[in-house]
Amino acid sequence: MKRDIELINAHLDKYLELRYPNNIWEAMRYSVLAKGKRLRPLIALESARACGGDINNVLPAACAIEMLHCQSLIHDDLPCMDNDDYRRGQLTNHKVYGEAIAVLAGDALLSLAPRVIIKHTPDSVDKKILLSVLDEFFKAAGAMGIVGGQVVDIQSENREINIETFNYILNHKTGELFKFAARAGALLAGATGEKPDALASYGSKIGYAFQIADDILDVTGTIDEIGKTPGKDSKLNKNTYVSFHGIEKSETDLINICESAKKILMRNKIKSGLLYDIADNIVMKAVK
Amino acid sequence: MKRDIELINAHLDKYLELRYPNNIWEAMRYSVLAKGKRLRPLIALESARACGGDINNVLPAACAIEMLHCQSLIHDDLPCMDNDDYRRGQLTNHKVYGEAIAVLAGDALLSLAPRVIIKHTPDSVDKKILLSVLDEFFKAAGAMGIVGGQVVDIQSENREINIETFNYILNHKTGELFKFAARAGALLAGATGEKPDALASYGSKIGYAFQIADDILDVTGTIDEIGKTPGKDSKLNKNTYVSFHGIEKSETDLINICESAKKILMRNKIKSGLLYDIADNIVMKAVK
Repeated sequence: MKRDIELINAHLDKYLELRYPNNIWEAMRYSVLAKGKRLRPLIALESARACGGDINNVLPAACAIEMLHCQSLIHDDLPCMDNDDYRRGQLTNHKVYGEAIAVLAGDALLSLAPRVIIKHTPDSVDKKILLSVLDEFFKAAGAMGIVGGQVVDIQSENREINIETFNYILNHKTGELFKFAARAGALLAGATGEKPDALASYGSKIGYAFQIADDILDVTGTIDEIGKTPGKDSKLNKNTYVSFHGIEKSETDLINICESAKKILMRNKIKSGLLYDIADNIVMKAVK
Repeated sequence: MKRDIELINAHLDKYLELRYPNNIWEAMRYSVLAKGKRLRPLIALESARACGGDINNVLPAACAIEMLHCQSLIHDDLPCMDNDDYRRGQLTNHKVYGEAIAVLAGDALLSLAPRVIIKHTPDSVDKKILLSVLDEFFKAAGAMGIVGGQVVDIQSENREINIETFNYILNHKTGELFKFAARAGALLAGATGEKPDALASYGSKIGYAFQIADDILDVTGTIDEIGKTPGKDSKLNKNTYVSFHGIEKSETDLINICESAKKILMRNKIKSGLLYDIADNIVMKAVK
């Protein structure tokens, strides 16, 4: 896992080589190269490995996924959105580079990500698969994915919402990209049959679990543990898994969801220690 | 030309079909379906036609180009950037939907555009060409294109800059997308040889000319003529072609650049009344 993280970081560093105008590349690098768990790209790589594929086929897409994730964080943190000062243990992008550059750094990352996939995925990968991976990438990014989740999340602030709406937010803001990461790994590895969908389903559950864990840690965690200001959600009167279900049920649900993610792997004979570990780690970090 | 505009508008309307969450799709529709000249998509279609290609091959990319253009306008108009209240004769996106939705509507458009190209370009178009069109699309969008130009533009406010920097802004903020539109039309029409590059060069010049015309009209135009607040650039102490060269030279240069754009068409035997008309119209509108 450590080696994969190093591989991802080295490639992100390469893809984000400093160019003119320096300021925007520095802003992109600042957020993308910040200390992160790289969970989404790790899942993409491991998903490919679990399907018997070459991880070099997936490395560009894995890096693109991290870029997209960072783009969404930079824009989410803006004063007009969640207005966050800290992220990944450092000041947010707009706090360092100003709001204009932060907006543009997000746009630039969203534009660079597909170029990385197109230019750096090995020629051996079928072009039809590559195009469908790009299509799903942008589905996860846009109004049917992360953006859609964020929109409903903003609209729901200071309002009572039902459980369907809450689940929509959770699945779209976080679930879609995890789902895509796992599925893209399988597709780019050349997996056919039921594996891509099984891994998509695993990814979706992991994303859901990850957000529940995040909501739990917003209540129980420290700034050192989570790398951002804790207690922010309740201060903003945000709907979170915890505000909906309470800490106790949140913890139980988290455990059950991660168990069911692992069961999907078992049922589909997907052998990967790391994918199991990821599910277990989410639980361990949030449930003390 | 009128029929092409109707075709573009009908397809934009279709691609932007209202979905849940409505608010974001409405915001996207508000800016994209606003009255616009559709100059970039028109150039893409006509470029394909001039290469003897089927415009249906280019229609999705043409619409994607308009979406990208609108995305850049929505983000440029934000209070943290140019802080504009009017655009295309109506209130700017954030004035109607708020800043958060405006940021997200831009992100959603940038994510929808490639999906339109991937899903709606006819199967007959070679997948390698499609991937290279997507790559060039995002080059025009990102830190080596529109975003790069906007970054240098922001950094240059209230500062003296040299002519190289000024030209960088002009070519990237405006030129790149025009260049891409003309080139993509040729590529998707299956053109080979020198035509794609010749059309790219035509597009680049038209983009340059278009920005000069815009700068002239910011000084001499009315809000009715230009659909946005005039005099804004000089109020913001912005570097414009006019602030650099004065009105008289701006007008002469505009005429010369449009003539040289037409000469490229002639030299490469590219027959298209509309591409000539576009060059002439830019001059006619700005030089009274």
